[in-house]
Amino acid sequence: MGPILLNCTGSDHQEYIKQQVQVKNPYLDTMEEDILYHFSLSTKTHNLPEMFGDIKFVCVGGSANRMKSFAQFIHQELKLPGHPEVRDICEGTDRYCMYKVGPVLSISHGMGVPSISIMLHELIKLLHHAQCRDVVLFRLGTSGGVGLAPGTVVITDKAVDYSFRPQFEQVVLGKVITRSTELDEGVASELLQCSSELQNFPTVIGKTMCTHDFYEGQGRLDGALCSFSHEEKLEYLRKAYEAGVRNIEMESTVFAAMSRVCGLRAAVICVVLLNRFEGDQITSPHDVLVEYQQRPQVLVSHFIKKRLGLAA
Amino acid sequence: MGPILLNCTGSDHQEYIKQQVQVKNPYLDTMEEDILYHFSLSTKTHNLPEMFGDIKFVCVGGSANRMKSFAQFIHQELKLPGHPEVRDICEGTDRYCMYKVGPVLSISHGMGVPSISIMLHELIKLLHHAQCRDVVLFRLGTSGGVGLAPGTVVITDKAVDYSFRPQFEQVVLGKVITRSTELDEGVASELLQCSSELQNFPTVIGKTMCTHDFYEGQGRLDGALCSFSHEEKLEYLRKAYEAGVRNIEMESTVFAAMSRVCGLRAAVICVVLLNRFEGDQITSPHDVLVEYQQRPQVLVSHFIKKRLGLAA
Repeated sequence: MGPILLNCTGSDHQEYIKQQVQVKNPYLDTMEEDILYHFSLSTKTHNLPEMFGDIKFVCVGGSANRMKSFAQFIHQELKLPGHPEVRDICEGTDRYCMYKVGPVLSISHGMGVPSISIMLHELIKLLHHAQCRDVVLFRLGTSGGVGLAPGTVVITDKAVDYSFRPQFEQVVLGKVITRSTELDEGVASELLQCSSELQNFPTVIGKTMCTHDFYEGQGRLDGALCSFSHEEKLEYLRKAYEAGVRNIEMESTVFAAMSRVCGLRAAVICVVLLNRFEGDQITSPHDVLVEYQQRPQVLVSHFIKKRLGLAA
Repeated sequence: MGPILLNCTGSDHQEYIKQQVQVKNPYLDTMEEDILYHFSLSTKTHNLPEMFGDIKFVCVGGSANRMKSFAQFIHQELKLPGHPEVRDICEGTDRYCMYKVGPVLSISHGMGVPSISIMLHELIKLLHHAQCRDVVLFRLGTSGGVGLAPGTVVITDKAVDYSFRPQFEQVVLGKVITRSTELDEGVASELLQCSSELQNFPTVIGKTMCTHDFYEGQGRLDGALCSFSHEEKLEYLRKAYEAGVRNIEMESTVFAAMSRVCGLRAAVICVVLLNRFEGDQITSPHDVLVEYQQRPQVLVSHFIKKRLGLAA
């Protein structure tokens, strides 16, 4: 493990330093081999502590290309020697991509709760097998804004469901159980502080609504199916806004719930690609969208540099 | 549109021939432009009828590499001239991959209901804009078997939820509505007939359970979280078996529901990678898994060749 300096202060410093990733499965340590199938990694064929033991920051996002760009970007930002490492650690599968840059792991998770949930199970097991400590987990995403201008970055305080409740419903053997979706307050305010230091783009803290589809569930009028009126759509968005929702995406509830259960400090940082009060289609030019998508990366990079004592 | 001979018989022939893909959205035809954002296609920048008007068979599956292999395989099978066309039509985005081979479209959809649902909305709109008719839709997937040996192919008659109900719950503007998940009986029995002609691998018709995660929802003991015993897991799988469930995957309910609502004949064909009564981890060697994953492709290819009058 590399000598990573954690530039963190406050009363919970000791507790924080010692924090290990907690799997909540009594069977796991009794298994002779654990195949992380969707990563194409295994405890028998890979030395996970050697490969991943120094990881302190895990950044995940939906798009494989975006997470590759992020890996190259953070390599540059951390002023690491040599060419940016861009080898996909999960090259044995096309389910997810994974890049390691010093203490930072960058992983794609696809779209939607089920897709990110498979990744999170295997990531948490990976961090456990690798005996990682003091890991902070970030989701860097894109989203629809609720009353916010395109380009605004939202740091999530609570992920909420379609009824604006801060909970995630998980089915376990045919029974529905409920998990809390509150995210780490400290990391969120540290990120907001980073944004005010950067002064590059507007950033807010708010609730993020997580839906299980992009069209009917988010009140879009442009899907293959649409059974409601423009006015009913606006009414739903207004209710969401009144409940504190500032953006809508498709992964935050399970991300928050699983991080919480496993003792991982986690944050969701999504840029808004459009204001849903004004439309449904994403019509901004490609280069504008590319710049928007870099904003969460810039913010998280600044956070990581500060934590490592590398910020200007 | 190419001169496609549909080798289909029976009393519903005329109705079948005329069948158009039905979007259920009154707003769609009033839009000046429709951007199929996750395909990186649009009605303004692409001539969709010219590009896709002759499509008769749409094959979708989770993995991008697998759907590329399928495109190359079907090119060979249909004895089309020239090199297999492997250009990704969606190369402007990394959300999905899409390949066109004569009247066959091969598309990846990622993992889980939300991911395939975005793809289906945009696919159905694409088929509508392209004025396609008589389209048959197939999902070619992998799954966990319930009391079946690895390598068995399951053709789904009904997709069921975690309580074994043949329904899909869709949230529309914060309200839950329920849609039926029965698949086309005719296509399913035609596929079973194809399998008996091929005599290559065991094939059954049965119910397919669709879950929203791979670990807790499917009763796996090897996730990052597990709160149940081995015996409780087996009891749940036994109940599933008694209800007629023969395999478990993560996309079939929304696939069946949306196809049905939009008048698309659809089938789900998944190979079983393991028998869940015997374990949770996928431990078969890579080459065995590769051969298993080709089985749904071989079956659907035979179906397509028969329909086109090309079967030996």
